[in-house]
Formats: sequence, C-alpha cells, structure tokens
Amino acid sequence: MSIAVLYGSSRADGNTELLTDHVVKGLQVKKIFLKDYQIKDIIDQRHEENGFDYVSDDYDHLIDLVLESDVLIFATPIYWYGMSGIMKSFIDRWSQTVRDERYPNFKTRMANKKAYVIAVGGDAPKIKGLPLIQQFSYICNFIGLDFQGYILGEGVKPNDILKDEEALIKALNLNKKLKK
Amino acid sequence: MSIAVLYGSSRADGNTELLTDHVVKGLQVKKIFLKDYQIKDIIDQRHEENGFDYVSDDYDHLIDLVLESDVLIFATPIYWYGMSGIMKSFIDRWSQTVRDERYPNFKTRMANKKAYVIAVGGDAPKIKGLPLIQQFSYICNFIGLDFQGYILGEGVKPNDILKDEEALIKALNLNKKLKK
Amino acid sequence: MSIAVLYGSSRADGNTELLTDHVVKGLQVKKIFLKDYQIKDIIDQRHEENGFDYVSDDYDHLIDLVLESDVLIFATPIYWYGMSGIMKSFIDRWSQTVRDERYPNFKTRMANKKAYVIAVGGDAPKIKGLPLIQQFSYICNFIGLDFQGYILGEGVKPNDILKDEEALIKALNLNKKLKK
Amino acid sequence: MSIAVLYGSSRADGNTELLTDHVVKGLQVKKIFLKDYQIKDIIDQRHEENGFDYVSDDYDHLIDLVLESDVLIFATPIYWYGMSGIMKSFIDRWSQTVRDERYPNFKTRMANKKAYVIAVGGDAPKIKGLPLIQQFSYICNFIGLDFQGYILGEGVKPNDILKDEEALIKALNLNKKLKK
Repeated sequence: MSIAVLYGSSRADGNTELLTDHVVKGLQVKKIFLKDYQIKDIIDQRHEENGFDYVSDDYDHLIDLVLESDVLIFATPIYWYGMSGIMKSFIDRWSQTVRDERYPNFKTRMANKKAYVIAVGGDAPKIKGLPLIQQFSYICNFIGLDFQGYILGEGVKPNDILKDEEALIKALNLNKKLKK
Repeated sequence: MSIAVLYGSSRADGNTELLTDHVVKGLQVKKIFLKDYQIKDIIDQRHEENGFDYVSDDYDHLIDLVLESDVLIFATPIYWYGMSGIMKSFIDRWSQTVRDERYPNFKTRMANKKAYVIAVGGDAPKIKGLPLIQQFSYICNFIGLDFQGYILGEGVKPNDILKDEEALIKALNLNKKLKK
Repeated sequence: MSIAVLYGSSRADGNTELLTDHVVKGLQVKKIFLKDYQIKDIIDQRHEENGFDYVSDDYDHLIDLVLESDVLIFATPIYWYGMSGIMKSFIDRWSQTVRDERYPNFKTRMANKKAYVIAVGGDAPKIKGLPLIQQFSYICNFIGLDFQGYILGEGVKPNDILKDEEALIKALNLNKKLKK
Repeated sequence: MSIAVLYGSSRADGNTELLTDHVVKGLQVKKIFLKDYQIKDIIDQRHEENGFDYVSDDYDHLIDLVLESDVLIFATPIYWYGMSGIMKSFIDRWSQTVRDERYPNFKTRMANKKAYVIAVGGDAPKIKGLPLIQQFSYICNFIGLDFQGYILGEGVKPNDILKDEEALIKALNLNKKLKK
C-alpha cells in the first residue's frame, strides 16, 4: 500500500504538518508540499472547440504521484474556513485531467484510492471546519475516492496542535490503521 | 453607494458572470476579474520575527478597490464544491493584510461593507453549494463583513443559467435592492 | 397532480403557514396540520424478534394521505435550528413504516414524489437554516423523494414574513411552477 | 461537577447508550431517558396576550435536573439525519422556559454549563451527522451553553458501536477529561 500526503500549507513545519507527522510516523509516504511546486490556476476550456490547452508546469508530475498511490491524505491548514488556495488550485486542475486524453482512465484510477483529510485551524475548527469536510465528501463522491475519515485539529501558534489531545489521539489511531 | 464585483471564474462569459450581469444591470460597478491579475499565493509568515515580506503583484491594487467599495459581490463558479482556487487565493491573502501596517484599519474598513455571494455550479448547487455559503458566512463574520445574501444557480454548459428561473428571479430582486 | 402540505407548527396562522399560503394559492392541496393529530413517538423495535408492534394513533391516516399525493411540501417553523419536534416525530415513524408489511412498497411509493421544504425562522434562517436543508436532502435521498427545492424565510412576530421579499418571490415562483 | 445525560433513544441499550456508557464510566451521572417521561409538544404561545399556559407533564422535573447540572451530555441516536423527535420535543420546550417567570434566569443558568453531543447513526454518520452537529452548535450558541465537543459513532445492529474504534477512543478520551 503506497501513501501520498498532499500538504496545502504555505509554510513549513506548521501545525497541520505536525499533526500529519503523527499520522504517518513509521510509514513510508510520499510527501508532496504543494507550495514547492508551480501549479497554475485552471483555465476552464471545457466548452472550447479544441478543449484544454496543454499546460506547462509541475501539475502532471504531481498528479502522476497521486495516481501511483493507494491512499491520499489531504493535509491542509484551515485558511478562511476552507482548504488553502494552494490546495484548491491543485484540485481545480482535476477538471482538466478528467478530460485529458493522456489520462484516459483518470476517474477509474482515482476510484480505487482511499482518502483522508487532516485540517488544522485556529477558530473553532471542530465546528467551523465542518463545511470543509462536507466539501471534501462531495469531492470524493464525485471523483470516486473512498472518503475514509478526517481529523480536525486546533492550533494557531507553532506547536499549538500538541495541546489538542483529541486530535493527537485520532492521529495515533489513524497511524495504527494505516499500518495494518 | 459603490459596488465591487469580484469574479472568480477562469473563463469569460460563463454562467456565473451571466447571472451576475442580471444582478448589476443598470448599476455602476467595478468589475474585478481576478483571473486577469497576478495574485500570488499567500506565504504564511505570521509567526516569523519580522512578519510578512512585501509581495509584489496586483493584490494591493485589488484590495484597494475592495476597500473603496461599500458593497462586495463575490461571484464564483462552484469548482469542486467550493469557490475557485483563484478567488480563494485572493481571500487567503487577507491574512497578510490584516497584519499589514500599510492597512492599519483593514478589519474596521471591511466591517462597513455589505457582502453578497453569487455561485453557479453544475451538480445540485442548491444543496451541494451550501457548505460554500456556510464558509462565506464564517469568512464574513470573522472579517466583519455584513453577509446580506446569496444566490445559488445551476448551470454546466454556456447559458444554462438562463434556464434557472429561480436564480434569475433572485438576481432581479437583488438588482432592485441594490438600486434603492 | 395532488399536493399534500405537512405543517409542523404548533400554532395556527404563523409565519410558516402564511408563507406557504403564497405557495399553494389557487391550488387544491391537502393541508395536514400535524399538531392536530395524535402521533406517538416511535418505539424502535427494529431489532426485536417480532418487529414493531402495531401503534394506535393517527399516523396511519396521515401516511396514507402522504402516499396518495404526488407532491409533498414540508412546511415547518425553524425551532432551535431544526424542524419542529412535531414534524420530526412524524418522520421518525417512517422507520416503522419501512418495515410494516401493511405498506410493502413504502419506499417505492415515496420515490415517485417530489418534495419541497418551506421553513421560517427568526435567527438568520438563510444561514442557520442550512443544516436543516442538508438534513432534508439526506432524508429525501434515503427514502427516494425527489427534493426539488426549498424556501427559507425570516420572521419572528406574526406577519413578519410579509416583509421578507425574497422569500415571497420564491413562494410566488414555486406557486407558478406547481400550477404548470 | 455534576453531569446529566439526556438520552434521546426510543429503546434501551442501543448503540448510543452503549457508547455513552464508555463516556460516563466511573462517573456519577444523572441518566435521563427522555422516552420514560411524558413531554408534551410545545404549543407556541409566544405571541398570545397571556403568554404560555402552564403545562402539566414531566418537563419541569427534567429541566430542573438539567439546571442543577454543570455538564450536559446529549446522547441521541441519529434518526433521519437528526436528533430523535423525542429529544427535539424536549428542546423545543425550552422556548417556553425562556419566557417562564418561574425560571427567571434560565438563559443565565444554562450559560454556565458545558455541553457534549454523542450521536450514533447507521448511514455514514461522520459525514451525514454533521448538520446535526452544526444545529447543536447553533442551539448552544443561542442558549449560551459552552459546546465542548461531540462524538459521532457508527452502528445499526445492537453492539455495532463496539466495532467503531475511533468513536470508542474518543469516548475514552472524553471520559478521562470528565474525570479531571
């Protein structure tokens, strides 16, 4: 079983990353820090005669990593009560891949994967992060990902997450599950 | 009363824009097509000693337009059950502005504005768009914007929105309200 | 096309009823004021050897009216950010009907119906009423009802709803649609 | 610190009760099985000249138990994607108590309490139970309760909940927290 973690944060070593460290401890995972790649915003050409133009950036490399994995972990700080723009822009690009003849079975290949969401925020994330979870649930349903669970953690300042016992316990538990 | 419309779409003349046309018909508004500007992703430097670095792009120009306005209309297609990454990346940058000494009263100045959301999607947007509305409600609460209302419209292909009578009626009604 | 309106309010002539009047004006509808009937709370006997005991109250009469109808309108005041307990207790009983051999095709018969929700509340219903709409969406999905739309109205004091132009316009629009 | 558990189930020894047993193990709590009491539906007389009539049932006894407690645990099976009608009808009655001169400081007295929600359902409760959590969040905000957390568990058949490791761990963790 191979695992890819998609990190949506714009800084290194943040609370989301720290919480995710507990989830992936002792596991071999591909860590994809989205901020370190060039991912252009989607240009919606669904309705143009010739469809989407080829886009030259790091997206293809990343989606290849995603497609090679059996488990996807979306690890995003909660910015403005949603996933980061960085992560959203990556997901928006899926709309192109769905129609990309170089990825003829994109939906089918996504459908075999399990997905988890780890999200950390500072303002009542266990309530105000729920729309984000609902959004991910719809995303997974649409693309066929098997949405297996989520962890909402609380933290503002560096290392705050280490005080969120409930989130840490859920992380530990998910770690065990992923090791099976 | 001055109105700014922030468009989140990645293409021109889409359904969201068309629906928004009905809302702003006969009104003088500043139309801000976010896709036409360079808006860099936020780099979260909240916890660095020297705070945020100055970012050179079009963001300052856009946030100035926002701050000059009394009414903000967020017009976004629903991409993957949320606002577009383009729009999200713009909003994510507010976290820097909140701490930017060049904008000492950012929150106070935002707090005097009314906000509306117009969002059009293809997959049951009047249900699956609700987490997006809840997210905007939290965003507005946080920054102090007065969230006055929203219109969820349905459409996939160009001009589909013209068949969504309910959305058009709400648009017409909002148009009347804004003209008062 | 026959229409049944299920009213969840505990008082007559409230804002929800008033708004619903606009929806059903000129239409022949069966008005079911749930408060006027004896509807016992469900006793969950799903897991008992002999299943559910027969319950003597007005429920069967009401569910028969529901089953005879092509369109169901759930008209409930928003009490504590949800449907009224009166309406919820009625819906809870469906769990018995699903397993009642006297209603062998309950789910199939429900699946042919269109459903609408009309809900009026006093505390920001267009935001804080959204979980209720999501709940109804899940309810409809489960039982197979075709959830066609909803109107959220605002009102506390008697006749307040008449000041909610947006809700009235949506009611008028739904009225037109139901007349087709 | 005194704890009251309000059980919304219509049967004894269900999954919700079982999960809650893990939460309250070793603690002295008042267990209130709402189904065992007569709780009449609210009659909304807010707008009548003389206000609410006195209602003769078990409600006053129960609300007294609630008011004597420092911590409230709302333990409800998820029926139709919401709390049970039994529990909802109890909460609906708070609208009367808010205006009851025999309970002059109802809101103030509620405001000193911590609240938890434990809810178990059979159909993807960790996603489809989220509107219920959002509703409880609004309820707590309104009445002033301090909403401290929630556990969503999965189970259909008797004892199913014992297979939901995540829920059990959260229950254990909450148990520890309540013991402090």
